[in-house]
Amino acid sequence: MNIAQYMPVKIIFGSGSLNQLGEIAAQYGKCAMLVTMPWEGVQKPAFIQAKDLLEAAGLRVVTYDKVVPNPTTTTINEASIIAKKEQVDVMIGLGGGSSIDTAKAIAVGATHPGVAWDYVYTEKKTANSSATLPIIAVTTTSGTGSHTTKYAVFTNPDLKVKSTIVNEAVFPKAAIVDPELMRTMPAFVSATTGFDAFTHAFESYTNIHANPLIDQLALVSMEIIVKTLEKAIENPDNLEYRTLLATADTLSGICIANVGTTLPHSIGQPISGKCPWVSHGQSLALVYPEFLKFTQSACIEKFAKVARFFNSALENVSDDIAASELSNEVSELQKRMNIYTSLKELNVPKSMINDIVRDAVLCPDTYVNPRIPSAEQVKQMLDNMWETS
Amino acid sequence: MNIAQYMPVKIIFGSGSLNQLGEIAAQYGKCAMLVTMPWEGVQKPAFIQAKDLLEAAGLRVVTYDKVVPNPTTTTINEASIIAKKEQVDVMIGLGGGSSIDTAKAIAVGATHPGVAWDYVYTEKKTANSSATLPIIAVTTTSGTGSHTTKYAVFTNPDLKVKSTIVNEAVFPKAAIVDPELMRTMPAFVSATTGFDAFTHAFESYTNIHANPLIDQLALVSMEIIVKTLEKAIENPDNLEYRTLLATADTLSGICIANVGTTLPHSIGQPISGKCPWVSHGQSLALVYPEFLKFTQSACIEKFAKVARFFNSALENVSDDIAASELSNEVSELQKRMNIYTSLKELNVPKSMINDIVRDAVLCPDTYVNPRIPSAEQVKQMLDNMWETS
Repeated sequence: MNIAQYMPVKIIFGSGSLNQLGEIAAQYGKCAMLVTMPWEGVQKPAFIQAKDLLEAAGLRVVTYDKVVPNPTTTTINEASIIAKKEQVDVMIGLGGGSSIDTAKAIAVGATHPGVAWDYVYTEKKTANSSATLPIIAVTTTSGTGSHTTKYAVFTNPDLKVKSTIVNEAVFPKAAIVDPELMRTMPAFVSATTGFDAFTHAFESYTNIHANPLIDQLALVSMEIIVKTLEKAIENPDNLEYRTLLATADTLSGICIANVGTTLPHSIGQPISGKCPWVSHGQSLALVYPEFLKFTQSACIEKFAKVARFFNSALENVSDDIAASELSNEVSELQKRMNIYTSLKELNVPKSMINDIVRDAVLCPDTYVNPRIPSAEQVKQMLDNMWETS
Repeated sequence: MNIAQYMPVKIIFGSGSLNQLGEIAAQYGKCAMLVTMPWEGVQKPAFIQAKDLLEAAGLRVVTYDKVVPNPTTTTINEASIIAKKEQVDVMIGLGGGSSIDTAKAIAVGATHPGVAWDYVYTEKKTANSSATLPIIAVTTTSGTGSHTTKYAVFTNPDLKVKSTIVNEAVFPKAAIVDPELMRTMPAFVSATTGFDAFTHAFESYTNIHANPLIDQLALVSMEIIVKTLEKAIENPDNLEYRTLLATADTLSGICIANVGTTLPHSIGQPISGKCPWVSHGQSLALVYPEFLKFTQSACIEKFAKVARFFNSALENVSDDIAASELSNEVSELQKRMNIYTSLKELNVPKSMINDIVRDAVLCPDTYVNPRIPSAEQVKQMLDNMWETS
């Protein structure tokens, strides 16, 4: 069955929607595990509110607040043991993609033989839908789309490999998208997660498996991000901008859930897999200028359409010229948002480039890009990313 | 749970997607009932292809080809008896909203005590999800959105009442949206179904329960329809236009599945319920100019935004002025598409107006309109619809 769109997640969207957490979670049992980053950050009020709401709905709450960016098997395995011991009924990931992906992986790890890593697609074991704990995603960033996907991405630090559970069992039962929670998001997080959402829409739109239905969602998402992200960074507390970006993130999440990502993710994932201090969104921002230059000749019309969201003056030039401007437009946006960078600036060792190339050419995302690079061409792109020009 | 978006239908979209029908239906059993309009119309090739595909996938096919526009309990009850006797496993509605809604109602009628009508929301019995036969929707028009909804609308001719089964059990398991099937759609059907899709988006967008996520889908859908519908009518065979309209219909279907319709549907439904020669889309086209005039003062900003899809010169005027132009813009579009009409032209007896008013004020859709009319105001609108000006 060649599905163009399937989205079984009940999406609770809008200002104040966090208030529904208790009611929703209570449908799935008596004990919830609340999975978050450490509680002392900007999200502390949201964590406390979530815990209170769950307890008010009669649930026992087990908190696990050791989520790390680019989540690891170390934390996931530790939390899975706790979830099993505490007989958790429902997993709640509250935070950005790292918290949600950690909750998803625990939902598998706590209910299956072995550990969560055994169920990433590269290990070829399949999680059982009915065994996997139900998951509720509460997203506090506008970027990863994880609240709408059947993917959980995490890293095995022993192998220095980042991989993904791909299974309908980890589709959240419900996703709460409350723009109020996004008003305290720092500028760098807004920029990198917002850019991540842009990449989801862009890569679904230009994917060789793109479909006309999802294309429309991708276009809406990209137009919102290009026209709103900088304004939200300048006015972090503005609820209208936060709501628009949450919409863009959710729509682009639906895009990747149904079509999927391409070459930037196959190069970006090993970078943050091997260098966990590089966030997922930052790794994509790094890759984009070179990826766009490499790919543009293979996808002129779509590149041109997106370029015109950045610069309406490009309405008056040919598709060829507009498409060739996209890399510059993206670089300029990145510069204005302070996320334009290089491998050197990100402290990625030069010696690691060959390993990144090897992982990238093994990744299936590479082969749905409109132009498929050889290993040498991936290496050339990475060499070009060494220093900013 | 206040859900903004939930869409459990697997949507198979794109040119050639009908070819997947056999494979999909075979997942649900051995015997399919293929529910269509009489087989001698423009859709004959699609009917034959569907039957062949089902048989090639090993299914026994029971055909029921007596669907009528504004489906009735008469046909639904007859077909339900056949479905029960033939031990049908899966219902396939192939056609416009009438065929799909008939298939949905049979799926309930064939598996529950009593008849399908007992399960419309006004009768207050609830169909059982696990008993209801699985439904596959194959849409051949771009308008009703039925392939994405949990609604089956039909008429009880004895009561002269049109009502609706509202139940997650009648969400199709899969929807096939193949724009190839839409290339033979006559101009009048393209116009009225296309206008119906516009109303779904418009009424979800202006509904008092609108949400910002669905708003974006509604805006995309309306913009496509306003800019493409006339072109598709002039070039019926153009696959690009048909694909865009199928996209708009599917997105606006997601809008009504999650937000819902308002006043035009509460006035339009009783008109075609009592006068089944008036198609659903035609009844809405009739109601719109008056509805827009009545409602515009209560929803200026959103009306203005939609008016500007029709006429970009309205970018340069105030929201107040742009909003007040919407009724004219819609009337002009209807005139160009030959669907601008009056109660008199549609042969609706003048004596029926009071009954229509009575049904309209009983319908919950009336109370989610941005401006709620009294019975007198509904009567005034209907009086204004008597003759075109």
